[in-house]
Amino acid sequence: MNPSNHIFLRALNGETLERPPVWMMRQAGRYLPEYIALRNKYDFFTRVQTPELAAAITLQPIDIIGPDAAIIFSDILVIPQAMGLEVLMEEGKGPLLPKTIATQNDIDALETSGAAEKLHYVLDALRLTKEQLAGRVPLIGFAGAPFTILCYLVEGKGSKTWEKAKQFCFTHPQLAHQLLQKITDITIDYLLAQVAAGADAVQVFDSWSGSLSKADFELFAQPYLLQIADALHQSAPVILFPKGSWYALPALAKSNASAIGIDWCMDAKTARQLTADAITLQGNFDPAKLLATPAQIVQWTTDMIDSFGTTRYIANLGHGITPNVPVANAKAFINAVKSYRAKA
Amino acid sequence: MNPSNHIFLRALNGETLERPPVWMMRQAGRYLPEYIALRNKYDFFTRVQTPELAAAITLQPIDIIGPDAAIIFSDILVIPQAMGLEVLMEEGKGPLLPKTIATQNDIDALETSGAAEKLHYVLDALRLTKEQLAGRVPLIGFAGAPFTILCYLVEGKGSKTWEKAKQFCFTHPQLAHQLLQKITDITIDYLLAQVAAGADAVQVFDSWSGSLSKADFELFAQPYLLQIADALHQSAPVILFPKGSWYALPALAKSNASAIGIDWCMDAKTARQLTADAITLQGNFDPAKLLATPAQIVQWTTDMIDSFGTTRYIANLGHGITPNVPVANAKAFINAVKSYRAKA
Repeated sequence: MNPSNHIFLRALNGETLERPPVWMMRQAGRYLPEYIALRNKYDFFTRVQTPELAAAITLQPIDIIGPDAAIIFSDILVIPQAMGLEVLMEEGKGPLLPKTIATQNDIDALETSGAAEKLHYVLDALRLTKEQLAGRVPLIGFAGAPFTILCYLVEGKGSKTWEKAKQFCFTHPQLAHQLLQKITDITIDYLLAQVAAGADAVQVFDSWSGSLSKADFELFAQPYLLQIADALHQSAPVILFPKGSWYALPALAKSNASAIGIDWCMDAKTARQLTADAITLQGNFDPAKLLATPAQIVQWTTDMIDSFGTTRYIANLGHGITPNVPVANAKAFINAVKSYRAKA
Repeated sequence: MNPSNHIFLRALNGETLERPPVWMMRQAGRYLPEYIALRNKYDFFTRVQTPELAAAITLQPIDIIGPDAAIIFSDILVIPQAMGLEVLMEEGKGPLLPKTIATQNDIDALETSGAAEKLHYVLDALRLTKEQLAGRVPLIGFAGAPFTILCYLVEGKGSKTWEKAKQFCFTHPQLAHQLLQKITDITIDYLLAQVAAGADAVQVFDSWSGSLSKADFELFAQPYLLQIADALHQSAPVILFPKGSWYALPALAKSNASAIGIDWCMDAKTARQLTADAITLQGNFDPAKLLATPAQIVQWTTDMIDSFGTTRYIANLGHGITPNVPVANAKAFINAVKSYRAKA
């Protein structure tokens, strides 16, 4: 199979389709017993940094639940590591960066070159996965968006409000922009290297941009998302996922991205209006609905596709799948999309 | 002073004003050394259940930073207590309900009568505060919205995603509606009793409604918010604050509420468009901006009022003030609003 003919890439290309493609954020993850078996044997960064393990984890959902795309098993915090910072990951507790960024000296010390060498294990994992996929489905690479990475660099761990990161942006905007530019530069290199290693598309996760007002998103998030889309789009289609930043849809719809991910707070009609029906949308099933019965999941999934349509649409969740979802329910979601046919 | 002539109530009434009134969610709270002094002497529910303490805490910000309204010091989880459930509050850790709600029997066992007797200490605190305010500023009563209270009843503690509460709604909608109706019934009685005890206006906090899609908000949150507004509006103006539910603005603008609270993700222009400029809006300063310098705070606050206008607008934060805000910065915010004058 030539992946460029695959339904997932055709949806990113805006082609007319009979049904949308489907994948799930965090589809390679803790709801799969096969993943838990590997997690119990290898710690997080061993799984991320061993290409054979990352490839095996990436392929698990392809074999088990059958989505229309694979997404490489990795983490957005490999970029801080490539910039020279230590990142610790305690299972179930989230990340911890012992050294955080606060001053000009801190920013000056961050490295922005050599992403491909330092993160060779991700590129090796992409190559290995691509080989093992043997054309079955396209392969998605990814990175964190610059604002989201800044959040972790400044706060050093997860936060509900990211107020320390925002305080840094609001009170030291020049430092913030320097930092965001450094993250952007290395991220562009890293994503281009992922494409060279076999990624058929890339997704940029701005997981915390929804903590910003529209005006602050336009200052601290949007310019860097646009730089990434501009730098990548001739190499591979780009999906931007600024979670919670519903207000950003009109601007991002005019960007060089091929698709925008949306969460479940945005209904299809509003999303199509805000994007002037000009870009592929990806989302937006509430992951909590995967805890209902398979019959309900099929009905809700069908309703969702009815409202988005089958063209310029990629069915997905509005956020990552949660660990407590039964595998049968994840399959029900995937199969509901794959068996959908547009009404006459 | 007749409180009905007060700028805060005039703004709720839609009157033309030279400057908006201002108060801050959680203005009686941990950023005040005077509050911390009382917190160090009395545990949480002692502070809530002792009218003299609750009144003293309510008055602290009035004396110290001078907002245009007082809001009674209490907690939304007094309603679960009045319904017969135990609520524990560990300082800095959030609430814990040892017994959660899952079945028909659980719901049947919940009490809905006698709110005024069981929560007499809140009503006593309102009466005492009103007396001590001596007409200086109006007094706001409040309650949690039914969906937000359901979240705590089902999960028993805070959550990032409220997926268990949502699973309950999605898989047992009949039970969920029974539960929401019981919460609504007792909440209406409770808010009417607050008005009888002296509350000049009431605010309903739907702190977690933003975890719902528009369609699910319309099923599980909106009907109960509307019932409360319908039952209260002839007694006192109602402010609805469905945090994060930006999609609900058009419907709520047509309700019997006098105002809608909005968070900082919603810009003024969009909010005015979505509400057809037909209702008072309250918000929406990003609390993280209170961590900048007073000069910056004054500039941003002035910009905010420029964009909302001085009529049908109540200046506030978009969420509660955080503990780490210097008192001088809170004062800068309040004073910037109070010294604002519309441009000629």
